Amino acid sequence: MTSPPTVTLTELNALPAGAAAKLLGAIVENSPWIGQNCARKRPFASFEALHAAILAEIGALPVDSLDGLFRLHPELAGAEAKAGAMTSDSTSEQGRLGLTSLDPAQLATLDALNAAYREKFGFPCIIALRLHDSVASVLHAFEQRIDVNLDEARAANLREIGEIVRGRIERILTPQGWLSTHVLDTGAGRPAAGMSIGLFIKNGADWLSLKSVRSNADGRTDEPLLRARAMKVGVYRLEFDAGAYFRQQGVAVDTPAFVDRVSLEFGVSDRDAHYHVPLLCTPWSYTTYRGS
Amino acid sequence: MTSPPTVTLTELNALPAGAAAKLLGAIVENSPWIGQNCARKRPFASFEALHAAILAEIGALPVDSLDGLFRLHPELAGAEAKAGAMTSDSTSEQGRLGLTSLDPAQLATLDALNAAYREKFGFPCIIALRLHDSVASVLHAFEQRIDVNLDEARAANLREIGEIVRGRIERILTPQGWLSTHVLDTGAGRPAAGMSIGLFIKNGADWLSLKSVRSNADGRTDEPLLRARAMKVGVYRLEFDAGAYFRQQGVAVDTPAFVDRVSLEFGVSDRDAHYHVPLLCTPWSYTTYRGS
Amino acid sequence: MTSPPTVTLTELNALPAGAAAKLLGAIVENSPWIGQNCARKRPFASFEALHAAILAEIGALPVDSLDGLFRLHPELAGAEAKAGAMTSDSTSEQGRLGLTSLDPAQLATLDALNAAYREKFGFPCIIALRLHDSVASVLHAFEQRIDVNLDEARAANLREIGEIVRGRIERILTPQGWLSTHVLDTGAGRPAAGMSIGLFIKNGADWLSLKSVRSNADGRTDEPLLRARAMKVGVYRLEFDAGAYFRQQGVAVDTPAFVDRVSLEFGVSDRDAHYHVPLLCTPWSYTTYRGS
Amino acid sequence: MTSPPTVTLTELNALPAGAAAKLLGAIVENSPWIGQNCARKRPFASFEALHAAILAEIGALPVDSLDGLFRLHPELAGAEAKAGAMTSDSTSEQGRLGLTSLDPAQLATLDALNAAYREKFGFPCIIALRLHDSVASVLHAFEQRIDVNLDEARAANLREIGEIVRGRIERILTPQGWLSTHVLDTGAGRPAAGMSIGLFIKNGADWLSLKSVRSNADGRTDEPLLRARAMKVGVYRLEFDAGAYFRQQGVAVDTPAFVDRVSLEFGVSDRDAHYHVPLLCTPWSYTTYRGS
Repeated sequence: MTSPPTVTLTELNALPAGAAAKLLGAIVENSPWIGQNCARKRPFASFEALHAAILAEIGALPVDSLDGLFRLHPELAGAEAKAGAMTSDSTSEQGRLGLTSLDPAQLATLDALNAAYREKFGFPCIIALRLHDSVASVLHAFEQRIDVNLDEARAANLREIGEIVRGRIERILTPQGWLSTHVLDTGAGRPAAGMSIGLFIKNGADWLSLKSVRSNADGRTDEPLLRARAMKVGVYRLEFDAGAYFRQQGVAVDTPAFVDRVSLEFGVSDRDAHYHVPLLCTPWSYTTYRGS
Repeated sequence: MTSPPTVTLTELNALPAGAAAKLLGAIVENSPWIGQNCARKRPFASFEALHAAILAEIGALPVDSLDGLFRLHPELAGAEAKAGAMTSDSTSEQGRLGLTSLDPAQLATLDALNAAYREKFGFPCIIALRLHDSVASVLHAFEQRIDVNLDEARAANLREIGEIVRGRIERILTPQGWLSTHVLDTGAGRPAAGMSIGLFIKNGADWLSLKSVRSNADGRTDEPLLRARAMKVGVYRLEFDAGAYFRQQGVAVDTPAFVDRVSLEFGVSDRDAHYHVPLLCTPWSYTTYRGS
Repeated sequence: MTSPPTVTLTELNALPAGAAAKLLGAIVENSPWIGQNCARKRPFASFEALHAAILAEIGALPVDSLDGLFRLHPELAGAEAKAGAMTSDSTSEQGRLGLTSLDPAQLATLDALNAAYREKFGFPCIIALRLHDSVASVLHAFEQRIDVNLDEARAANLREIGEIVRGRIERILTPQGWLSTHVLDTGAGRPAAGMSIGLFIKNGADWLSLKSVRSNADGRTDEPLLRARAMKVGVYRLEFDAGAYFRQQGVAVDTPAFVDRVSLEFGVSDRDAHYHVPLLCTPWSYTTYRGS
Repeated sequence: MTSPPTVTLTELNALPAGAAAKLLGAIVENSPWIGQNCARKRPFASFEALHAAILAEIGALPVDSLDGLFRLHPELAGAEAKAGAMTSDSTSEQGRLGLTSLDPAQLATLDALNAAYREKFGFPCIIALRLHDSVASVLHAFEQRIDVNLDEARAANLREIGEIVRGRIERILTPQGWLSTHVLDTGAGRPAAGMSIGLFIKNGADWLSLKSVRSNADGRTDEPLLRARAMKVGVYRLEFDAGAYFRQQGVAVDTPAFVDRVSLEFGVSDRDAHYHVPLLCTPWSYTTYRGS
């Protein structure tokens, strides 16, 4: 059981028809025809264009076929999981949260929810596990999904499939964007060399440290701060130790310094775009902007 | 037992000689002559000038007198404390950390340290309690103070007295500075009205929330963010909910927004100065600087 | 023959009905009823609102009345001018360009144009003299106005009346806006005091010098750069002698300096608004924006 | 008679000894030994270092030798010029201003000045013609040079030789610096594509247009604005037609627009450095800085 091959969008657009159909065919659970149709609609201009194309195929289905497509999805910790008969994608997604090794009480709860939902709607409740970080969170979401009408249930399933599809495309397509910075000492009219720079990503209420580097002689970093698979949609923070830099330059600063640690928060919404986040600073001012 | 009266530097400079001598006379423990001398050196141009004048009086003392001045300070949780014979300043400082109500083990440790120190140097070990936040921290500092020579012990005591003096002046002098902000929506060429603004102060590794306000029609706050006794030397953070503002203005922003929460950290080193910390922002850029 | 009284918009809105009617009644040549109607529509929110209200009165007229209103305007250097029978506004407007003292050849040309136009359309050709700066320019414009059809002639007259009305309101209403600046030395974190600042207005291809001042200790100017009647719609330029300032501060700059003369061009479109045009500068960078 | 070869500083530093000596040997009129000495002092770190090295050779001469070196310079339109016996550099320099084809009256004036100066000081009056733009200007400068003492005359000749040397190095060394710009639409978070950009150089009171380009899709220009021999020390102006750009983007701007023509003046003091002069702008604000 191996991971799917990873390609850039450019490579995907150039792939032979058969290979593209195979790659995209795995995106929607047990419905390879969707990816095959989409393979014929290449080239795609962006990640979002491919995502939209796949959802358009599903959205065009008559209601009966849609319910059928829902039924091709496994229940959470359901019969397929127990029998080891899920796709490798589903196995990996359910495994991450521990849904494949629940304790008996959780399993009983989930079995009851699955049974109640299937009895009411006739198809499984689809949940994009990537948006959850615990079994409790999944169970809580599941409970909210039962007391709705049939149209609402279908809409919710479609919404979750949209998220699942997004996650699977993310695993197939290597991001083409990257993140860079550039620090200018605008009081001295030159790049700020040797400044400590930290990069963090927001994870719930926490900030995870991703990288700690030092600006080079041109005020840039030797490598992009993020690129390829490290380039994820999310909220980031760049931290610049400007105070230490100015002290080292022999600039007199107050105690505490007015500008010391500069902290720039910014969102990355497109993993295929270049995000250039420069810092223009003096001991008393700074500016940032989305550059290019 | 009442707090000392609070005055601005301007008021202090204009006070009758007797009142000024009385106010300043309490600054150095049991040595009213120092404040009296300083009262005659008025006017002072700043907080720092007054602080320097007091330390200059002490620094001019011959070694014998200096040791005598040290002996006018109470030991930590020592005889004076036990007898209720300390100045109100010392009582309040020792009380804040619980030094006036130690458990028997702590008290034994402290008694031993006091005895060892006094035997070695012949004067008490002076510690500026305002720089500590626990008994353990005080004890740890005390332990570092014993294994030094006499010159080092005197230098350390002088350094601590400098800090104690700073704290007592802070309690007497009302700061004359203030903190203000101003948010401009530079993409639209107008003040950013109705933006949520939070103010925090750094306390060790934590950020304590001080205030939560909303910008008015001119992009300012109705009241200064800090003024008078709230204006303390320290590291602050202003947080602007720029993303919510732009969304409310009907500006299309990405998810997540590139500029969402803007977080400006800055140091206040002079509590008698005006710190104006404006934010010029668009959904894709921002600038801050020390204004006026 | 005196100028009309000058009032702010706020004062106009608060004037007794009779006084307002009298003031506004002079705006459209020999048609006091228009201003009288408008006086009843007070309060006006802005200069532009008053201008629109007057044009709305004219625009609501049936064609016959409109032609009648045109006929209440004097011909250029025509019978009324020769007889000294024009309104004071018209006398002053025609006098500025020398239309009341033409040489015989110019007078003959203008008489011929007036006659041809009146014969063709039955009303005089109205020209907003404030948009011209020479008799030649007026004659040239007049010649373009003859070879059109009746609808076009009426539209052109209305357009010119709109401009005349704008000029007369400008003479009645004192602007409520003003222009200010503020220079911050963002490399040093303080106001830039003593910097030379020049203000210019664009006049055709030229820049007319309006004012030459020096920034005060707070980096501002002691008086607004423009206010009241000096506040006109137009394109302005602020010139800051930043290089001299930095040299005087003892900052080492190159020869020639990277930032020396800073020249900010900006448009003022609303003479009732506050235009704050700050400069944040270092020897190597600067920023301006519409402030508040 | 051909121009000297042109090399970059890097190439000059790597040239075989003989070729370097030949190239530098022509810098000081008829004194090839100076360039030869300097050739042995390679490598030079910059244009200025080479300039300083040549002047150091001259500055080290005893007074007699210095006067001898002065005498190796031709008089202006003097005997050598009349005989066609000047170096090609001098021929070209004197020819540019028309000193080789003066009218009889000018020639008589110049002959008289030459004779008076030579009689007084015993060496010719050296004038760096590159700083003049007319015969009248040269004659005026010459007249100021006679009524001085011997030390002042020597100092003036040395100063002029310094300028001549600068000019000859400029003709030999290709500048290694360049000028670039980058326009960011910071209200929209993307490069400003298709904006008209003009480049001017200050020449006395005038601004000479050097280039008129349009920003490309990345907000930059396809070619550097200046490079190689076009990169001269001087004061430049970049003009950006920001108003037209914003109107084309469908951004509503006032009439006149607040930000319309953005005019950035800046000095280039080092023709071997990279000057990056970006513009970050919105319809209501802009920022520039020396970038990298």
